Amino acid sequence: MSLVASSSSVTNVTLLDHLFRPRSVAVVGASTSREGVGRQILDNLLDFGYSGRVFAVNPKVHEIGGLPCYPAVSAIGEAPELAVVVVPRAVVLPVVEECIACGVQGLVVITAGFRELDREGAALEEQLRGRAAEAGVPLLGPNCMGLFNTDPSLRLNLTFSPVPPRPGHIAFLSQSGALGALVLSLTHGRPLGYSLFASLGNEAGVTHLDALAYAGADERTWVIALYLETFLRPEDFLRVARGVAEVKPVVCLKGGRSETGVRAASSHTGALATFSRAFEALLRQAGMILAENTEELLNIAQGFAQGPLPRGRRVRVLTNAGGPGVLAADLLERHGLQLPQLAAERQAQLRSFVAPRASLGNPVDLTVEGTPAMYNSAARLLLADGATDALLAVFVQPPHVSGADVLLAVEQAAGTAERPVVAAFPAQEDLLRKSCVDKCVLVDFPEAAAPVLSAMARYAEWRSLPRGRVPRFAVRQEQVARLIEHLRRVGRHVLDVEESLAVVRAYGIPVARHVLVREERELDAGARRVGFPVALKVVSADVLHKTEVGGVVLGIRSQAELEAAYRALMRRLAAVRPAGRVRGVLLQQMVPRDRELILGFRRDEQGLPVVLARLGGILAEALEAVVLRVLPVTDYDVRAMLAEMPGGRVLGAFRGWEPVALPTVEESLLRLAQLASDFPMISEVDLNPFMASSHPAACQAVDARIVLAA
Amino acid sequence: MSLVASSSSVTNVTLLDHLFRPRSVAVVGASTSREGVGRQILDNLLDFGYSGRVFAVNPKVHEIGGLPCYPAVSAIGEAPELAVVVVPRAVVLPVVEECIACGVQGLVVITAGFRELDREGAALEEQLRGRAAEAGVPLLGPNCMGLFNTDPSLRLNLTFSPVPPRPGHIAFLSQSGALGALVLSLTHGRPLGYSLFASLGNEAGVTHLDALAYAGADERTWVIALYLETFLRPEDFLRVARGVAEVKPVVCLKGGRSETGVRAASSHTGALATFSRAFEALLRQAGMILAENTEELLNIAQGFAQGPLPRGRRVRVLTNAGGPGVLAADLLERHGLQLPQLAAERQAQLRSFVAPRASLGNPVDLTVEGTPAMYNSAARLLLADGATDALLAVFVQPPHVSGADVLLAVEQAAGTAERPVVAAFPAQEDLLRKSCVDKCVLVDFPEAAAPVLSAMARYAEWRSLPRGRVPRFAVRQEQVARLIEHLRRVGRHVLDVEESLAVVRAYGIPVARHVLVREERELDAGARRVGFPVALKVVSADVLHKTEVGGVVLGIRSQAELEAAYRALMRRLAAVRPAGRVRGVLLQQMVPRDRELILGFRRDEQGLPVVLARLGGILAEALEAVVLRVLPVTDYDVRAMLAEMPGGRVLGAFRGWEPVALPTVEESLLRLAQLASDFPMISEVDLNPFMASSHPAACQAVDARIVLAA
Repeated sequence: MSLVASSSSVTNVTLLDHLFRPRSVAVVGASTSREGVGRQILDNLLDFGYSGRVFAVNPKVHEIGGLPCYPAVSAIGEAPELAVVVVPRAVVLPVVEECIACGVQGLVVITAGFRELDREGAALEEQLRGRAAEAGVPLLGPNCMGLFNTDPSLRLNLTFSPVPPRPGHIAFLSQSGALGALVLSLTHGRPLGYSLFASLGNEAGVTHLDALAYAGADERTWVIALYLETFLRPEDFLRVARGVAEVKPVVCLKGGRSETGVRAASSHTGALATFSRAFEALLRQAGMILAENTEELLNIAQGFAQGPLPRGRRVRVLTNAGGPGVLAADLLERHGLQLPQLAAERQAQLRSFVAPRASLGNPVDLTVEGTPAMYNSAARLLLADGATDALLAVFVQPPHVSGADVLLAVEQAAGTAERPVVAAFPAQEDLLRKSCVDKCVLVDFPEAAAPVLSAMARYAEWRSLPRGRVPRFAVRQEQVARLIEHLRRVGRHVLDVEESLAVVRAYGIPVARHVLVREERELDAGARRVGFPVALKVVSADVLHKTEVGGVVLGIRSQAELEAAYRALMRRLAAVRPAGRVRGVLLQQMVPRDRELILGFRRDEQGLPVVLARLGGILAEALEAVVLRVLPVTDYDVRAMLAEMPGGRVLGAFRGWEPVALPTVEESLLRLAQLASDFPMISEVDLNPFMASSHPAACQAVDARIVLAA
Repeated sequence: MSLVASSSSVTNVTLLDHLFRPRSVAVVGASTSREGVGRQILDNLLDFGYSGRVFAVNPKVHEIGGLPCYPAVSAIGEAPELAVVVVPRAVVLPVVEECIACGVQGLVVITAGFRELDREGAALEEQLRGRAAEAGVPLLGPNCMGLFNTDPSLRLNLTFSPVPPRPGHIAFLSQSGALGALVLSLTHGRPLGYSLFASLGNEAGVTHLDALAYAGADERTWVIALYLETFLRPEDFLRVARGVAEVKPVVCLKGGRSETGVRAASSHTGALATFSRAFEALLRQAGMILAENTEELLNIAQGFAQGPLPRGRRVRVLTNAGGPGVLAADLLERHGLQLPQLAAERQAQLRSFVAPRASLGNPVDLTVEGTPAMYNSAARLLLADGATDALLAVFVQPPHVSGADVLLAVEQAAGTAERPVVAAFPAQEDLLRKSCVDKCVLVDFPEAAAPVLSAMARYAEWRSLPRGRVPRFAVRQEQVARLIEHLRRVGRHVLDVEESLAVVRAYGIPVARHVLVREERELDAGARRVGFPVALKVVSADVLHKTEVGGVVLGIRSQAELEAAYRALMRRLAAVRPAGRVRGVLLQQMVPRDRELILGFRRDEQGLPVVLARLGGILAEALEAVVLRVLPVTDYDVRAMLAEMPGGRVLGAFRGWEPVALPTVEESLLRLAQLASDFPMISEVDLNPFMASSHPAACQAVDARIVLAA
């Protein structure tokens, strides 16, 4: 039972308290052998200091590690609020039945061998899912490694991880149990602390969206780290994930971004792993921060868990090491951060206490002579500067300077500033092992600071933006509905250029002036309406590639040329075998050359409905240099699309052109999205080219092609 | 004195033995205080077990830590082979004079405060450089942190690093002393071992090229890691660095790749830091492997130091963790490696000993039930497979499995295979601390394996390729020389389109058929020679942008159109103010539309001579999607240029076009390079467009523009 998907709001998440905040837990399948998973969970639960009551269930023994052992849940005499099921696959269902009958209100099924293994497992999982849903009991798993909640009043550890959870403010939700195990075991050299953890397993009951909503509502959670391989319905995802991102940052690592990766992911969870450019767009639309790899996921999560959000992108670097400072600056700039130079006045203040050889720009380089006191004073001074949004302190161990003292000095300076401070202290494992750090974000190499500060700055910007809205334009929807109805009746699913342009125009997207000419004698009147120079294009739904059959003539400058071109075009079409049905010829005004875009709509290989844009030309095609967004698309989304389009700077002042009238292009994209969402039977729209000009009136679709689902 | 630059071969590197293999060392400026740099160097030298004689020099004391102390080098009574100078800046020169007078054969000047500090320092450094060069004594520094050589028969540590060197096969050469210190201190959790280290400082004597050549010739060095911020002459660099790369891999990290980074680098070494796309191209042309960041530099160096080179790009992943295996696969694919599936026969063999839930594709996922024995058997089996070029073993700690045992099992399997094995063992610091690993490359996160294996595969491919050669074509050099001489005489430095095409054609680059028309009555004959359709282009060195003044008319299909177009063009030109000198009009055959390239030559902002290529169109311009190579350019280089050109797949079968006749385009690039190297006064050549076609005869320059140095 997915709690989120079954309701339109996210109120049901309190049901998950039965999983994350139970007053009593039964471990069903606890074994006497210390190597058994059930026993490990029982030990972890006891060792971590769970505040509730614990029951061990195992019909074969009477006692485990001093704890009395019940033969069955029904034998306990009271209903445990939560049952953790670690029994062989064959008896999972009977055990779950028994739990439900006894009044258990939450289930965690660790046992593997379901959907991810074989058909029999899939069938069993379906029964499991149905039974839990029927009873209204939240179910985590099967095929998972459990959950924990480090709330000091609860201290619930239901994992079999060999490393105890370190409390903190990161909720880690993982579609891979093993990645969860890895992350939890990284207690060394990284001050990472967790509020919640959930290994999602096969998501037969509780889904990643349920867990996301729960962590979003959890007060001790300041940031959510999410490992995702697959997802369910895009609309639900967008709604729930964005709702959470509005409240706290969600950092997402996507596994399965390559052909092999997708195949491997599908085999280990049994779910069809999904990846496409559209999925990535969906994550961004939901306000998520995408991490490139595991280390980045953890560093960024640590950043959000420990640092206040920056107010801008201006970073100061303070270092005692030239080269590492340079490398940090390189990476910060590459990640879109700014490194303003220090004002002369501030430099003079610094000069009074640093070594003579110190360099006072940005980075401020204290050189090998930098002391803890200098680090502290310089950090305070830089953090007090109005043009500092974040500080990166880099330290390389010289002889006779204590790294611990320098870190303390930086932390003391950070403590008073409402700005994020990242400390890059490579090769300081013993120092970091103490993990006493809580005022700054700790990374090892200076380069690792860049993705952290960049993610924090971008999230802060996203939070401060007005939320996008999905506008509704007044359009001639009825006209399009009638045309589509007619086409379906006659069994056609490809619209010809004239029909396509008519649909586009009905939705208020500007199109180049044109008339449909059915006979040669209409040419004269047509050309007078449209005005020279003109283009001729064959109008036929049967001709897929007009240019290839010689069905397009451009740059016709006179009536004489027009007539000659018309006849030549008709001769060429007559020679095409098999001949297609030709409705006539489109006589269209030649649009002045400007920046050619392709705007479009598709349903991608996963069925995700996406609006897309790219520059025209073969390079954009070769590079697949396209930007896209999943429906529903907001005004904010289309603005961001054009801003991040590869080569998008051609839309500004470029090559003597004035900047493009962006609002007009944006509105066309929004209208295109409205068309696609009004007519789910439309599978493809191409406005190619859409001429983008500095004059709003000159922005228009020159050609169009619409395809309906077959 | 740069040893390399002063000779055409690299034989003089044996002079550097005075620095890297001295029989005796004097530390001039050794202090009694344990915190002094001189004292630290002395202590390091003694502690590391140097096999030669050590002399401490300090006029103020008689003894340091039990060692007798001489008041001056001259007082020692014999000439130490090497002197390490750690005295205040003001006395560096007198001390160096004295050392030279006494017969010292090598100098390491640690003292800072020279060119990087102020003018006085720059003047002092110049004197220092002159003195050492005059005496023929190799000088490392000033402003450096020393050097070491871990050769067991020598054990020379002349650094003040607080961490002793760990012996191994990586030579680390650094233009940043601090980065050196950082790297040397990374002994924890990384099995990195070094043969040589040199902090290059201000390079007043020994340059990075000298050190590179020395490390290239050092037998204990298997791989060179190089941190570079600046460089000297490109020709020397290309010659020396490529010579070294032919023998052993050189992994290079470039500091100063951003505006701020370049500025910061310039301030800390006093040299003008350089970065440009051309510099990056130069590094690649030299066969170097570029690392993205410090961690990658170290991981890749470790890879080359420990693993045999792979024979191809096919990687097998063996894991006990689903998600981390997926993430590894994602990154391997993104880095251009291949992950072939396992043949059914091999799967059957695996099936016989792995857990039933194991997944047997690629990755092979042993699941949480994977034991050391399974790892060993599976690794052996995978390494024995003909379609395995490298193995990545991923391990995430489950309860009750020993990471050390699994690592040992993987190492044992690796020991028998002549293929690189990478072990990704995250969160295994205590295990890695032991660093007993010598059969496999150790990284922490699975994603970190991808750049390592990719670098190794690419280097192996580069090594196996036939070496490129710089061909000499028979060309009409004299004709070009006469034209250029004429232009210089009349004070012109921009060639008009007709002159430019003539130069290009003289170098055997095909150009579109054309005639120069000076008067209207020549049009008819011209058109008959060229053949319709034709284009008209104004021929004038004073008209920079022909199109913008209406100086180009395309697609003229008849004699009547030609005459009308000619007159209209002349009218437009007459209206241009100020009027330029017009030599006539180029009547040129219209070339059928095909893939338009821009081929060119430039001297970049650093003066580097580069040949470049990109696709035509505004997107390529906006993205600066250009590939380039520094002269001299080999046949291999131009082939690689076209292969790596952004969007280069349009040169294959694309959009109904046949694949481009690449050899013809390559030859044109080589001829262009020959033109540029024959005439150093040429500062710019543009062939725009160069039409690339599937027919060799249809590949041709359609327009050309040549500019001479003013």
